[in-house]
Amino acid sequence: MAGGQTKKAGGEGKKGGGETKKGNANAGGGGKKKEVKKETGLGLSYKKDENFGEWYSEVVVHGEMIEYYDISGCYILRPWTMSIWEAMQEFFDAEIKKLKIKNCYFPLFVSPTVLQKEKEHVEGFAPEVAWVTKSGQSDLEVPIAIRPTSETVMYPYYSKWIRGHRDLPLKLNQWCNVVRWEFSNPTPFIRSREFLWQEGHTAFATKAEADEEVLDILELYRRVYEEYLAIPVIKGKKSELEKFAGGLYTTSVEAFIPNTGRGIQGATSHCLGQNFAKMFEINFEDEKGEKAMVWQNSWAYSTRTIGVMVMVHGDDKGLVLPPKVAAVQVIVIPVPFKDADTQGIFDACTSTVNTLTEAGIHAEADLRDNYSPGWKYSHWELKGVPLRIEIGPRDLANSQVRVVRRDNSAKVDIPMASLVEQVKDLLVTIQKSLYDVATQKRDACIQKVTTWDEFIEALGQKKLILAPWCDEEEVEKDVKARTKGEMGACKTLCTPFEQPDLPEGTLCFASGKPAKKWSYWGRSY
Amino acid sequence: MAGGQTKKAGGEGKKGGGETKKGNANAGGGGKKKEVKKETGLGLSYKKDENFGEWYSEVVVHGEMIEYYDISGCYILRPWTMSIWEAMQEFFDAEIKKLKIKNCYFPLFVSPTVLQKEKEHVEGFAPEVAWVTKSGQSDLEVPIAIRPTSETVMYPYYSKWIRGHRDLPLKLNQWCNVVRWEFSNPTPFIRSREFLWQEGHTAFATKAEADEEVLDILELYRRVYEEYLAIPVIKGKKSELEKFAGGLYTTSVEAFIPNTGRGIQGATSHCLGQNFAKMFEINFEDEKGEKAMVWQNSWAYSTRTIGVMVMVHGDDKGLVLPPKVAAVQVIVIPVPFKDADTQGIFDACTSTVNTLTEAGIHAEADLRDNYSPGWKYSHWELKGVPLRIEIGPRDLANSQVRVVRRDNSAKVDIPMASLVEQVKDLLVTIQKSLYDVATQKRDACIQKVTTWDEFIEALGQKKLILAPWCDEEEVEKDVKARTKGEMGACKTLCTPFEQPDLPEGTLCFASGKPAKKWSYWGRSY
Repeated sequence: MAGGQTKKAGGEGKKGGGETKKGNANAGGGGKKKEVKKETGLGLSYKKDENFGEWYSEVVVHGEMIEYYDISGCYILRPWTMSIWEAMQEFFDAEIKKLKIKNCYFPLFVSPTVLQKEKEHVEGFAPEVAWVTKSGQSDLEVPIAIRPTSETVMYPYYSKWIRGHRDLPLKLNQWCNVVRWEFSNPTPFIRSREFLWQEGHTAFATKAEADEEVLDILELYRRVYEEYLAIPVIKGKKSELEKFAGGLYTTSVEAFIPNTGRGIQGATSHCLGQNFAKMFEINFEDEKGEKAMVWQNSWAYSTRTIGVMVMVHGDDKGLVLPPKVAAVQVIVIPVPFKDADTQGIFDACTSTVNTLTEAGIHAEADLRDNYSPGWKYSHWELKGVPLRIEIGPRDLANSQVRVVRRDNSAKVDIPMASLVEQVKDLLVTIQKSLYDVATQKRDACIQKVTTWDEFIEALGQKKLILAPWCDEEEVEKDVKARTKGEMGACKTLCTPFEQPDLPEGTLCFASGKPAKKWSYWGRSY
Repeated sequence: MAGGQTKKAGGEGKKGGGETKKGNANAGGGGKKKEVKKETGLGLSYKKDENFGEWYSEVVVHGEMIEYYDISGCYILRPWTMSIWEAMQEFFDAEIKKLKIKNCYFPLFVSPTVLQKEKEHVEGFAPEVAWVTKSGQSDLEVPIAIRPTSETVMYPYYSKWIRGHRDLPLKLNQWCNVVRWEFSNPTPFIRSREFLWQEGHTAFATKAEADEEVLDILELYRRVYEEYLAIPVIKGKKSELEKFAGGLYTTSVEAFIPNTGRGIQGATSHCLGQNFAKMFEINFEDEKGEKAMVWQNSWAYSTRTIGVMVMVHGDDKGLVLPPKVAAVQVIVIPVPFKDADTQGIFDACTSTVNTLTEAGIHAEADLRDNYSPGWKYSHWELKGVPLRIEIGPRDLANSQVRVVRRDNSAKVDIPMASLVEQVKDLLVTIQKSLYDVATQKRDACIQKVTTWDEFIEALGQKKLILAPWCDEEEVEKDVKARTKGEMGACKTLCTPFEQPDLPEGTLCFASGKPAKKWSYWGRSY
């Protein structure tokens, strides 16, 4: 989690445009009943293609996911966000329980001596650590750190709990908040001073078991992104420069934001090797009665996932939520007409919601009488609800509903008789379509290069660059130095597990030395 | 949340007896296989009746619920604890969602100006607030507080989000950690510097709606205690002296620990009235177009619940877990015999676990070959597993299992044919029996008094005292002053909603003035 985050697009510039426009029920509205609102400027001020950073800030605020907070870099996660977080959590928590990983909760605080035990590790985090020095009016005897991650919090106790080979594997996870007091460019979800995550910490008797788990967990992260958030990710290994501070190797799932041409580390699964075990003396007596050291992993994904989802799927109308994580999958809106049977239409809306709800679909009706249907369409589009159902006099007469997709605005009339079946199909279709479209856009950005000139050209075109590399740390440092500019340096994102052919004699794009592998390069968040 | 916690029994004296005995697989054991351990002093050193405080510390550590941490007042919640917390959370979270309460997440940090906005409120918390003053090597411009509770964190945004009557009610909840840097007697679960809780914060247009919700939530808290933790609680209202700082009135569920004769506030549901609304300017335009102020509630329960569970049900053998919250409800132990069919017995254990698991019962087998059956019995009794199943040669021959209850040691043989049915029944019976026994013990401690002499005598006998009271704050202060001693002062626990008859002319036990109500008095945690 330490490496891999140096620059961003997006950020706090706009703070949601000063006073937030309220997408909520009575936004800026008076109490005068029945005074139907016309279109009231619900649209976003910025376009995704033109001003991505401002667009992002606006969409997370106006979509009611985030509220900016009076402490910079801290954000309020509103219910619209939390239901997405909870949907992912429900999946992931059940999966790790199948792997016999158990939940625990370690303290928020860590004492300085313990925090500083693993030098390389602490150097990665030290500048960002928040320190508590006072309680009430009194100074603490010793300042106490707030966890930026929990390796040093937990491992002294792993040392205590693990004695013999039968105590292994020890597999724990916690869902918690962590604090990294970063000063550069706070951005909702993507880079915040406090964020929510899960962190898994496991210890094994053998490296083989640790290696296997690293990939098991990485596969779950892929599923979170691809199956839940409908975002394609690349599985691979981090370079030595970009790996977790103090660990042996880091694997990750990497996403890509076409609009900014930046990669984004989606989640990481680290093999820590025996480095922490050595520092924290996590030893055990093996089956032969000999003293051995454990092999450890740690792995995490955070609320950053949600920011990636907004960036990838959102459009100029607002958020676009994948059905599998949407708190409201279907919004039902009455479209009354002057002389029509208004009560009949409202009743049909309610009964449609009931029918869908009974079938396990998250459906709600917006029956407010002080907003026009058009205003409601815009409002729920802004919030990214996957499907809109409109019911008007003609629908009532024909025992049908009109269904409109958020992702592509496609409209279709569905007979009430097959409502549940067709809505279910549509939700599956939308989920798949979001993933397919995102994959097409991402793939269109992938550029294979073999020379430095091609590399620089591709970088200028905001590509996700796949290049043959000699795998030398000095060369990566050199590339970073040579590309350092306004947009931020380019670095390795990962070496993908899926490797193209590397013909004998292929040379590194940057050093001209023999290439050892294909790696992805790019600017990143 | 502020009031009501002044003294305790239990605490940090022993830190789990120095080096923790490991209840885990290979406790202090070598790697030599098949060397069956004899009884290895798994028993507790302290008895619940003789040295309650040491017994409590020992049982939470040896039962593997808690590990003491190197920062005083912070504790590690181990998986055995977290599964209890999650069982309660699953229930409570589903129930509040039915009430249309939505989850959110507000920041851990609060700026000093906002924290100090409501004077009375902040005075209740100020001495316990932890302050962050540094990040990395730099001093922060302004120190930042860590939330002790989130009224002041949230309400500035309630003011922003609520404009018209259609924005109401606003009903949010969050599951999070809070920090109160208390200096007196830290005790695992009961009084810790960081703890987990949920905090609900709601705003309504009318006092009637707020009043109704206070009781709806209190009923859920009663159900958490009575239905899940099998602990009887008393619903009632706190005195003016003991209510939430800055609120209008506080209701609570109160539990009682017979061994120490102390009451313990189980959870609180506060009506905040309009005090915070005034300070944070949470106004709305009502249906008549007039400006009005909201009515607010806040309510919370914490990991303290788990400490109460340990104190109420635990015994000299260790923890006793109610089946509804136990991570393992049934532990299956093979009892091989010299010439018996060991493999057959082990297979029967595995198939028993499978049968129970398929029926939705949390069952596990302890097939370790380096511990004797007797050691395993003690181990799982220490951990409080509700039911033990033993399978030996005779059981195998008779197609039966022997079942032993943790709560009362009752043994019964169950034919395999009716295993699931009878185990399910037994778990229900144990849950009910724990509640009944706890209620009998609690009720045996309730003492009705009408005079000061009776009151003092009952207090000496560690009773839960029900006394007629004039309901004057000065009188409660006077009682506290007069009873201040080594054991801590006596105060009101609550005025129960269920009031005994109060005949005309009844006088206050303490002041001799006319009594207005019956209230519970006692020492408390």
